[in-house]
Amino acid sequence: MSVVDFARFVDDLATQSGGAILPFFRAAFSTEDKARGGGAFDPVTEADRAGETVMRRLIKQTFPGHGILGEEFGTEGADAEYVWVLDPIDGTRGFIAGLPLWGTLIGLTRHGVPCYGLMNQPFTGERFSGDGKSAQYRGPHGSRRLHARRKADLKDAVMATTDPRLFAEGPDRDAYGRVEAAVRLARYGTDCYAYCMLAAGQIDLVVETGLKPYDIVAMIPVIEGAGGVVTTWDGGPAAGGGAIVAAGDPRLHEAALKLLRP
Amino acid sequence: MSVVDFARFVDDLATQSGGAILPFFRAAFSTEDKARGGGAFDPVTEADRAGETVMRRLIKQTFPGHGILGEEFGTEGADAEYVWVLDPIDGTRGFIAGLPLWGTLIGLTRHGVPCYGLMNQPFTGERFSGDGKSAQYRGPHGSRRLHARRKADLKDAVMATTDPRLFAEGPDRDAYGRVEAAVRLARYGTDCYAYCMLAAGQIDLVVETGLKPYDIVAMIPVIEGAGGVVTTWDGGPAAGGGAIVAAGDPRLHEAALKLLRP
Repeated sequence: MSVVDFARFVDDLATQSGGAILPFFRAAFSTEDKARGGGAFDPVTEADRAGETVMRRLIKQTFPGHGILGEEFGTEGADAEYVWVLDPIDGTRGFIAGLPLWGTLIGLTRHGVPCYGLMNQPFTGERFSGDGKSAQYRGPHGSRRLHARRKADLKDAVMATTDPRLFAEGPDRDAYGRVEAAVRLARYGTDCYAYCMLAAGQIDLVVETGLKPYDIVAMIPVIEGAGGVVTTWDGGPAAGGGAIVAAGDPRLHEAALKLLRP
Repeated sequence: MSVVDFARFVDDLATQSGGAILPFFRAAFSTEDKARGGGAFDPVTEADRAGETVMRRLIKQTFPGHGILGEEFGTEGADAEYVWVLDPIDGTRGFIAGLPLWGTLIGLTRHGVPCYGLMNQPFTGERFSGDGKSAQYRGPHGSRRLHARRKADLKDAVMATTDPRLFAEGPDRDAYGRVEAAVRLARYGTDCYAYCMLAAGQIDLVVETGLKPYDIVAMIPVIEGAGGVVTTWDGGPAAGGGAIVAAGDPRLHEAALKLLRP
C-alpha cells in the first residue's frame, strides 16, 4: 500500500472523527451541564471517546493487521508493522475553554518510526499533514505546502509552549527559563497548534515536557516534512514523547539544546 | 439613529477591516519577510494600520460628527456624543504566531458609556456582539444568543489570562496568583477571545492588567449583554482600562474582587 492511499484513508479518519467530536465542542453554548447516569456530563471526555471509537472502528475494518495506540482505549497489536497512534483531542484545556487550538492527532508508524501524520481542527476546517519528506496545509482560505522558517538565532525566535507550569520546579523549569529568556517572544496556550505553526513558518521553536507518544508521533512527519527538526531535550528520537524540542531551523534547534542540556 | 442601524454599520466596519487585515495574517505562509523601503516588513503593523484606516474612513463618511479613539492613529473628537473605540488587532502576539485568537474590536460609547461592541475574527469567520442588554454569536457553524455561565465558586471556575508575566512582580502578581491558585483551571494566551468565551459560557473568569480603553470598551456590552460583570480590580467602571476582572456570575466576580483587593 502506498503513502498516497494512507493519506486518503487518514483524511477519512479525520472527517469521521471530526464529525463525532465537533458536536461536543462549546456544548455549553446550547446546553447546560447535563447529569447522565447520575454523573456530571463531561463534554471533553465524551468527545475524546466518541472520536477514538470512530477511528478504531475504521482502522480495524480497513487494516485488521495494524496495531493501534490511542489515548483513551490503550494499545492493541503494538508489535505490528504498522501502528496507528491516535489522540482524538490534543489540547483538552483549550477544548474546555472553547478555544479552537485543540486538534485530532492521527499518526502512523512503520517498524516504530513515524511515517505519516495529520492534525485535524474540525472547527476551523484546517488540516496539517506530512510524510517526513513534505508537508501540506488545507484550510478555509486555501491550501499550500508547508515550509518551516529559517531563523538561526534564539534572539529572533518566536517560541511557544503549552503552559510554563508544566515544567517541574528545579532543573527542568530552569532549563526552560533559559530558553524563554533568550527568545524574542514566548507564547503560551498552544498545544498541537504550535507544531503546526512551526511547520507553517510562523513559530520558530516549541519546547514542551511530559508528552506522551500520542501527543507527538503525528506531528513528527509534519515538522520534518516542512524542513524542521524535532527531538527530545537530549537530542534523541521524539517518537517516545517526554521532554521535546522542535525548531524550524536546525541551527536554532542546536542552540536550544545547548541551553536545555548544558 | 437606533441601535439596530448601528449594528448594521458595525458589521460593515467588521467586513471591511477584516478584508484589509486578513491578507497579512500568516503572511509567512506565502511570502518571506520583505524589506520595504529599507526596513523589515512587519505584517502585524501593516495589518493594524490597514484595518484602522479602513474603519476611520467609513466612520468619517457615515458619521462625520462622531469621535474616534483608535490604537494606531490616536484620538479625534473625544468630546463628541458618540465616540468609536477601535483596536484593529487585539492580540498581536497571537497574530504573529499564526494563532486565530486575535480579533478586531469595534466599540461605541455614548457620553462615555459603552453602548455597543463587536469582536470580529475574520479567519474563523466569527463575530461576537452585544449592546449591554443582549449578546449574539455568529460563526461558521451557526448563530445563537450568548449567555454567560453561572458558576459562583472559584473552585469550579475556568479562568483565562493573556500572560501571567504581564502582572508586575509584587502586589499585582501576588493578587493574580491568589486567584489562579483558587480556580479549577487557568488558561493562558487568550486576549479578547477570553471575553468572548466568557460571554459564551465557556470561561467563567478573566483577570488582566495594563489594558487600554480600546482593549476592553468593545467587550463590555458583549459581556454585560450575556449577563456577565466586568469592572476594574477596585470594582470601578471598566471602560478606562487598567486592571480588569470579568466574570460570568456576579457572585464569582465578588469572590475574585476579594482576592484581588483584600
